[in-house]
Amino acid sequence: MTSEFSQRSSVVEVEEGVELAPKFDSDGLIPAVTTDYKSGELLMQGYMNAEALKLTVKTGEAHYYSRSRDVLWHKGATSGLVQNVRELMIDDDQDCIWLKVDVSGGASCHVGYRSCFYRRIPLGSQDKPIKLEFTENKKVFDPKSLYGDSPNPTKL
Amino acid sequence: MTSEFSQRSSVVEVEEGVELAPKFDSDGLIPAVTTDYKSGELLMQGYMNAEALKLTVKTGEAHYYSRSRDVLWHKGATSGLVQNVRELMIDDDQDCIWLKVDVSGGASCHVGYRSCFYRRIPLGSQDKPIKLEFTENKKVFDPKSLYGDSPNPTKL
Repeated sequence: MTSEFSQRSSVVEVEEGVELAPKFDSDGLIPAVTTDYKSGELLMQGYMNAEALKLTVKTGEAHYYSRSRDVLWHKGATSGLVQNVRELMIDDDQDCIWLKVDVSGGASCHVGYRSCFYRRIPLGSQDKPIKLEFTENKKVFDPKSLYGDSPNPTKL
Repeated sequence: MTSEFSQRSSVVEVEEGVELAPKFDSDGLIPAVTTDYKSGELLMQGYMNAEALKLTVKTGEAHYYSRSRDVLWHKGATSGLVQNVRELMIDDDQDCIWLKVDVSGGASCHVGYRSCFYRRIPLGSQDKPIKLEFTENKKVFDPKSLYGDSPNPTKL
């Protein structure tokens, strides 16, 4: 069957060729890194399955696979915080996707912050345990009002 | 035993607290996203184990865990392309690390490019298979002269 994805036939072809031949892991997933197109800020790191990657290419809107909810995930379908993909990249061995996106609403994090990465690990810290430093001190939205009683995706 | 890492005792503490409580997966790994401190460009996505994370905090140089070689990996130990960490971040549910680095030598990719992400997936493409577009057309170094006969980390 003709597919959007090529076979991974040789290392040279995977690294230096032009055919899209993504490597999905044993769970059928490939990691996806999402940055803000304008600021370059890292917004989130998630996963895609084959369908999510195909839908992202086709629609230009970021689709992921939610491991915590075990479903295909059209980012923003619930929250309205859709990610419009401006540029989509793949890495050398084709086992990681990079999405550069514009986010409607300006937030990407279910906790309410602009980025999921709102805390710094201090380099050289000798604390046990190490104490994080907040780098965003204001939420962009109130997660309770946006998500209501939806289960929190964070798992212990 | 007192550790650098705290227990993951509650979702609120993990998301809104200040104690570093990283979530390592069943293989003992946490994904790590590495961007260029100045340009914001995504350089690579890798993994850390607990030791790699502790060494990164302690030394300020990026350490990873190489899944293909199955060893703790001080990035640059072979190639000289050490990554000096300028800022280290963790995400909302503490299952992803973000490193902002300066790279001596200006390259991060074992294929010889500046970034591992040197090919674009064209949005809306209807090709089967999809054809990638190169966005870097010049290698920063010659991988053969730098790595010699070391095995290529790319796996099919």
